[in-house]
Amino acid sequence: MSLASLKEAVFEANLALVDHGLVIFTWGNVSAIDRQQGLVAIKPSGVPYSTMKSDDMVILDLEGKVVEGSLKPSSDTPTHLELYRSFDTIGSVAHTHSTYAAAWSQSCRDLPITGTTHADYFSQDIPCTRDMTEEEIAGEFELNTGKVIVETFVERDINPAHVPAVLVKNHAPFIWGKDAHDCVHNCVVLEEICKMGAIADALNPEITMNKHLVRKHFNRKHGKNAYYGQK
Amino acid sequence: MSLASLKEAVFEANLALVDHGLVIFTWGNVSAIDRQQGLVAIKPSGVPYSTMKSDDMVILDLEGKVVEGSLKPSSDTPTHLELYRSFDTIGSVAHTHSTYAAAWSQSCRDLPITGTTHADYFSQDIPCTRDMTEEEIAGEFELNTGKVIVETFVERDINPAHVPAVLVKNHAPFIWGKDAHDCVHNCVVLEEICKMGAIADALNPEITMNKHLVRKHFNRKHGKNAYYGQK
Amino acid sequence: MSLASLKEAVFEANLALVDHGLVIFTWGNVSAIDRQQGLVAIKPSGVPYSTMKSDDMVILDLEGKVVEGSLKPSSDTPTHLELYRSFDTIGSVAHTHSTYAAAWSQSCRDLPITGTTHADYFSQDIPCTRDMTEEEIAGEFELNTGKVIVETFVERDINPAHVPAVLVKNHAPFIWGKDAHDCVHNCVVLEEICKMGAIADALNPEITMNKHLVRKHFNRKHGKNAYYGQK
Amino acid sequence: MSLASLKEAVFEANLALVDHGLVIFTWGNVSAIDRQQGLVAIKPSGVPYSTMKSDDMVILDLEGKVVEGSLKPSSDTPTHLELYRSFDTIGSVAHTHSTYAAAWSQSCRDLPITGTTHADYFSQDIPCTRDMTEEEIAGEFELNTGKVIVETFVERDINPAHVPAVLVKNHAPFIWGKDAHDCVHNCVVLEEICKMGAIADALNPEITMNKHLVRKHFNRKHGKNAYYGQK
Repeated sequence: MSLASLKEAVFEANLALVDHGLVIFTWGNVSAIDRQQGLVAIKPSGVPYSTMKSDDMVILDLEGKVVEGSLKPSSDTPTHLELYRSFDTIGSVAHTHSTYAAAWSQSCRDLPITGTTHADYFSQDIPCTRDMTEEEIAGEFELNTGKVIVETFVERDINPAHVPAVLVKNHAPFIWGKDAHDCVHNCVVLEEICKMGAIADALNPEITMNKHLVRKHFNRKHGKNAYYGQK
Repeated sequence: MSLASLKEAVFEANLALVDHGLVIFTWGNVSAIDRQQGLVAIKPSGVPYSTMKSDDMVILDLEGKVVEGSLKPSSDTPTHLELYRSFDTIGSVAHTHSTYAAAWSQSCRDLPITGTTHADYFSQDIPCTRDMTEEEIAGEFELNTGKVIVETFVERDINPAHVPAVLVKNHAPFIWGKDAHDCVHNCVVLEEICKMGAIADALNPEITMNKHLVRKHFNRKHGKNAYYGQK
Repeated sequence: MSLASLKEAVFEANLALVDHGLVIFTWGNVSAIDRQQGLVAIKPSGVPYSTMKSDDMVILDLEGKVVEGSLKPSSDTPTHLELYRSFDTIGSVAHTHSTYAAAWSQSCRDLPITGTTHADYFSQDIPCTRDMTEEEIAGEFELNTGKVIVETFVERDINPAHVPAVLVKNHAPFIWGKDAHDCVHNCVVLEEICKMGAIADALNPEITMNKHLVRKHFNRKHGKNAYYGQK
Repeated sequence: MSLASLKEAVFEANLALVDHGLVIFTWGNVSAIDRQQGLVAIKPSGVPYSTMKSDDMVILDLEGKVVEGSLKPSSDTPTHLELYRSFDTIGSVAHTHSTYAAAWSQSCRDLPITGTTHADYFSQDIPCTRDMTEEEIAGEFELNTGKVIVETFVERDINPAHVPAVLVKNHAPFIWGKDAHDCVHNCVVLEEICKMGAIADALNPEITMNKHLVRKHFNRKHGKNAYYGQK
């Protein structure tokens, strides 16, 4: 993929978050990576969506060195880069403050898997990270946010390809996907299942879901025996 | 009704679900049956609504044999067919993951009848199905989903013509109607009463509704003494 | 006011309910009265809003005799007429199943006055009516609905000019106003304060409001010392 | 800034509240101050937004004397003026009845800081004022509302530049900012964090937020070491 195409895909994905009602003002960002070149395109920091152009996307290498673009990259860039370095199956990362996903993050609870809408995309609960320490916050905060996300997936033995989102405690979600389009799709799904989950939690705080049903639905859409769609 | 008309009605009903805000992406499907010919038209699986055409609808017989159309039918087709085979008064079936109806399904609770908005369309509580067994899930899952729905109506002695929807546990609703238009209408009503029911449940978990009032409202719109509308 | 103007005002008020998102399908109706002629214009029963014309409004006298119009009046007409006969200060009546107001009605609770948004329009709690008896339901149901509303205001000594709405238990609200425009305005206010009230009730079930603050806000907009607006 | 520019900015800010879905009917108002001239422009009282013009804005001095404009200023003007007199860092004030912020006000609870969306704009909990006394209500009510807001910030030692909003008990929020544009921005943020806070409170009533994380996020966007955006 050319860098121009990568920037165009990232630009459109950022606008798509607004169209889907997941971002107000500049409260979100999407990046995508070209794994062959090891280069990431990401939204610039704090630029209004109405005037932003494809060419404003910033290109960086995986260590954070800007290789193209005159604007400052998103302040969340170090989090994105840590996720690309640690989760080698992902091709795009997003961060939003979408209402229900942010509310679950603020509530400091994992989003429990209680329905097939969730299981169609995520194979288990979506984890909420631990509290960050004073040192992690005072130090390289955004990098450390990425490290705490990775730690959460490693310690709980969660496959990031099967659970493409995390709730950062007292903050908001990070979401990823195979490419920028898939990543935005997962952002929409996450917000919707967070809304369903909040309503269901009020109706019945004791709900559980049959593990066989979880596996069945996840495998309908993923893996070698998937049979959903025209494939 | 010609097959072209049946396909057109099913196509429009699928789009109507999107217009009513009940379906995002491809999370829904509607079918309709021509009882005389014993043929069903249904949405193809996983095709984006923006490019879908009337002619993409797939025609099957009641045993699931495709008799017209080149695309794979919706993966939920065996559930639809089981409902047509068992509920002989229904002419159309829909499946959505609309937010509040899915949340009630996830909460594993029947939607209790507590208001006349509900009673105008459904004569009693809308049932939530039982857990499916490991064997039912591992086997012909979508067919078994239909069988569990039918079992729920039979065992609880519910008339599917008077309660045209079900909440599938940990999943989402199936809805039916006299024809595709009526079925979409019922999808809208179900989502609205699920929303009202969730709000009312939070305000007062102990609510009940007078059985005479239920019957009065249901009969205002249904049965031989109906007096609502211009009939 | 000419009957043509009365019909036009009622027609536009019915459409306004849809524009304000308070009515889906045909779930609502507005009427208005010309007190000098003793004639009421009301929406016809079950006619789709998209094809309804001003001339479809039905004109009746206060005893329910149709004096103009070829369509059947709304099935809720006897409730409207009972309110006009009993509450002589009102000029228009509406009925909706707007989501939050219907949910409060279903919850069988008065809407407590807890904020100035409420107090700007309603001088006290909005009452929820009692259960109707089997006889009241089996008899002239819509007339008896009106009688139970009137009984509620009489027994609790509530001035209908100061509390222009009621929650009918397990059903939905009736709303009134000085004229059709004012009545629709009150429908919007009621839905909004029912939404605020539901959110506030979840945040703090014990809330109360200072009676002096209630009176102050109600009198800012009503009565001889009102000082809101350009009057 | 010329008075014409000040009026234009205030006019546009008032319309922006409607566009952002924070105001229905005439339930809101924005003002802004020119500190050099000591003059305030404010929306007129009860004028419909659809016909309001920039020139309808009323100009007053800080004691409330109208110096330009033929319409009555907003009935909330004395509250605005008290805030300008007491909080000398603010350039604009708004009042809305936006749904979630009004519901928190009605619930008589501070909005607790539980997420970074809140901490990006407000350095601590957003306070809810105390009950007003019978004398304060019977007297110069709107002026006294302003005094109770100021008392709240003084007694709790809150810096109004770091917490640009307050919840007035049983009423609704007042919001401020550096200028009219910034003030509207804060109105949108407040409503969004009140919504997130209500959802999070239902999911987990015991949530708290790490003080280091609060400070980090507030300082990312404010103060001399801010590093968000293109500055």
